Amino acid sequence: MNHQVKPWLRRFEAVDEFHLSADVVICGYGGAGASAALEARRAGAEVLVLERASGGGGSTQMSSCEMYLGGSGGTALQQALGMEDSTENMLAYLVEAFGPHGDADKIRCYSEGAAAHFDWAESLGVPYRRAAILERTVVPFTDESLLFTGNERAYPFNRVAKPVPRGHVPSREGDEGGRIFMQALMARVEAEGSVILADARVLAVLQDDRGRVRGVAARIDGEERYIRARRGVILCAGGFVMNRSMLEQHAAQVLPYGEPYGNQWDLGDGIQMGVAAGGNAINMSECFISFAFYPPAKLTYGLLVNGRGQRFVNEDAYLARLGHYAGMQDDQKVYLLVQNEDFERSLYMENTPIAATGDSMAEVEREADLPPGALQATVAYYNEHAAQGADPLFRKHPDWLKPLDKPPFALISYHPDEVKYALGEDTGYLMFTLGGLATKTSGEVLTSAGGIVPGLYAAGRTTAGLPRTAKGYASGMSVGDATFFGRLAGLGAAANLE
Amino acid sequence: MNHQVKPWLRRFEAVDEFHLSADVVICGYGGAGASAALEARRAGAEVLVLERASGGGGSTQMSSCEMYLGGSGGTALQQALGMEDSTENMLAYLVEAFGPHGDADKIRCYSEGAAAHFDWAESLGVPYRRAAILERTVVPFTDESLLFTGNERAYPFNRVAKPVPRGHVPSREGDEGGRIFMQALMARVEAEGSVILADARVLAVLQDDRGRVRGVAARIDGEERYIRARRGVILCAGGFVMNRSMLEQHAAQVLPYGEPYGNQWDLGDGIQMGVAAGGNAINMSECFISFAFYPPAKLTYGLLVNGRGQRFVNEDAYLARLGHYAGMQDDQKVYLLVQNEDFERSLYMENTPIAATGDSMAEVEREADLPPGALQATVAYYNEHAAQGADPLFRKHPDWLKPLDKPPFALISYHPDEVKYALGEDTGYLMFTLGGLATKTSGEVLTSAGGIVPGLYAAGRTTAGLPRTAKGYASGMSVGDATFFGRLAGLGAAANLE
Repeated sequence: MNHQVKPWLRRFEAVDEFHLSADVVICGYGGAGASAALEARRAGAEVLVLERASGGGGSTQMSSCEMYLGGSGGTALQQALGMEDSTENMLAYLVEAFGPHGDADKIRCYSEGAAAHFDWAESLGVPYRRAAILERTVVPFTDESLLFTGNERAYPFNRVAKPVPRGHVPSREGDEGGRIFMQALMARVEAEGSVILADARVLAVLQDDRGRVRGVAARIDGEERYIRARRGVILCAGGFVMNRSMLEQHAAQVLPYGEPYGNQWDLGDGIQMGVAAGGNAINMSECFISFAFYPPAKLTYGLLVNGRGQRFVNEDAYLARLGHYAGMQDDQKVYLLVQNEDFERSLYMENTPIAATGDSMAEVEREADLPPGALQATVAYYNEHAAQGADPLFRKHPDWLKPLDKPPFALISYHPDEVKYALGEDTGYLMFTLGGLATKTSGEVLTSAGGIVPGLYAAGRTTAGLPRTAKGYASGMSVGDATFFGRLAGLGAAANLE
Repeated sequence: MNHQVKPWLRRFEAVDEFHLSADVVICGYGGAGASAALEARRAGAEVLVLERASGGGGSTQMSSCEMYLGGSGGTALQQALGMEDSTENMLAYLVEAFGPHGDADKIRCYSEGAAAHFDWAESLGVPYRRAAILERTVVPFTDESLLFTGNERAYPFNRVAKPVPRGHVPSREGDEGGRIFMQALMARVEAEGSVILADARVLAVLQDDRGRVRGVAARIDGEERYIRARRGVILCAGGFVMNRSMLEQHAAQVLPYGEPYGNQWDLGDGIQMGVAAGGNAINMSECFISFAFYPPAKLTYGLLVNGRGQRFVNEDAYLARLGHYAGMQDDQKVYLLVQNEDFERSLYMENTPIAATGDSMAEVEREADLPPGALQATVAYYNEHAAQGADPLFRKHPDWLKPLDKPPFALISYHPDEVKYALGEDTGYLMFTLGGLATKTSGEVLTSAGGIVPGLYAAGRTTAGLPRTAKGYASGMSVGDATFFGRLAGLGAAANLE
């Protein structure tokens, strides 16, 4: 097959010489690839991991490494703190979270296995302190290991499931979870005998004339090499958020507000290879979107309004749900209205301009050039009901309700062109992609006809995994998914004898 | 290649015997396929059209056959009525319409060629009467041939382009446009010598080891046949709105409210074959969504509100833009509030239940179980400004502004579960898909790497064409696109000598 037409696929039968071989060949050494390697090796396979970067870690290492875990009565950490979490409770939450986008099999499989997955993570030597933070935050800055990382306490989720914190994060002061976890995991992977090749870019999968994937072509030390996989190839090459062209093709709606977040090799190569081999890329338009106007938590007392002065979401929702709704507002005009006693800069979305200040809503809306009277009407309605502990429009939790009646007031603009981050000149709402290859819970790559591509597996953001939309996302769902289903893919490939 | 892994693709070199051959083989005999056939034949190619149904017509024949045309100073029809429409004006409109989803090359190519495309349509013998309907409607019920079919007069489009009607529809009383047009086109296609095979289902494309598409496999009269295409294969097999599984995979968000609209063979076969051959399927999450609460036009005086009593769009927008916004409202709770003098049943969305009536907004919102005071606040704000001819929130055109102050009032529910149509028991908002194969303006199918799949062309809803989102859709954009780019694909394939 001509490489120009199908650059991600080569014919196995046309390969003259193989330079390397292993039972299981894994493309990518982030959270998914490392988890797959460990389990494949433990199941007796010879494992070769190819990583394009100079070292492992991937986007998981850049993350806080929260994992969204629970069910089965509770993880060891939840139980130690006296919290109960049934599998059905977790399942109800996840079904509500992903709605029509959800994958029922993955939701059930994950809910049933998540508590044991925590034991696995801890068995790697990753420290998890038996302590929780229950206040509204994004990552702990002290060394607690359990926190609320989603919408559990917010409407409408609090109607369908009992709120339980499920964000499990390695214990360490500061945001070091990803580094701690990946170092522990990679040390174990390497100690147990997987072979890792860095600076090794996988170029194409090798497929035989019967459709079975039997290896890969890779560029290693500047040379093109053919590598045979006796049992299976596992694609764990991340998502495609760094590929501008793919975003334009599949998720154009995020371009006006999304700021790519991930490692530089999240270019979609794994997805492209999977599709070339007959796999089906699904859910490609969906992205995680972060609108982290909190912490500080007290900003939740404020009101999020659009360019018409209308509210559009309960402000106590999780940052990705906020991002989902913020992105949908026309021209992405989004403001937070706060009164003086709650005013403080957002920790993550810094340098957001103050569009207006004033001692009355009339003054604020005039200065911000909002439609006259609109904000006044919104706040009058809110205040009337908040005084009685109610939010009939959005059902923000009573804990966050109080009238906005103590001037001065500030209207902070969170227009994506104006949001800046501490770490750089980027603007917009941080995002990464949630679309990718359709897989079974075993990691086998599915075709559009519902069959499988023999010999081909995938995990992590190369797949459409557990998390499917920002609307129902919680921190820890992506690392949780990547490591959980990464392990299953490793087991599946290791067992895939011909 | 094993058919189970890649059911849509077969290896050309493995074919022993060809049963039929032509220069250009076209899969599908709807608007795109017929237009492609005519032009390919006129360019000197032997043309074979394979149609899965028992006869041609496709979804175009089911439609009103509006075509969205203008530019170049105006079509012959626009000019005869004294209307001017510059190419730049049309282009500015289309750029605004599709935003980040738009394909700049297709928008420009189409805007430059649309007026001449009208002459082509008329040259087929399709009658277009030099008369316009300027009132707000969806299709003419008398025999005028020009009408507004989009958002031209509505905000924000009326800010970036001069409003001109661009919906060109065959002249005939009643909604007969699609039948008239397709009968004329197919008669010409057949008179000029293309060969048509009905009941011929294309199963797979044949691709050689260098990547060139050289024919198709098809089931004809119960027998599998191999058909050689000397110059090219053109996929014109419609979209995928009738394929539930593909909707779940690519456009899950529409499942709670979308009602598939098209012909029964809009199953995505063409897209699947294109992807199997190395083509790139893009924009797959986007759908046309119809929220046709009008006509009667006077309902536009009403207010569309969500389950919180908030307005969410200017009510004078086109039905697809309304559908885009209606679909985004939580739980798809959407109501129209009208006062007695404007009350009438929607022509297309019949049998919608009246959620409440009353002599005051307080009464209405109580009966409909809306949050107390919410509708009252919305209407109070609206009335205050409407009395002065202004709509500061949504900028509905002043022609449609008047206070809602003459009781009794009715609140009509347009929840998709409750909307029923005259033609059947279906519920929901009518929809079809706007995602498909990426193509050049020439119809050549693009790979994800930006190259082309040699020998492979596509047009119509098998492609991601001119229209890319409901948000900016106008009636006539899909038939216009399918026939316009269908013709170019026919020309391209006919000229594709090896």
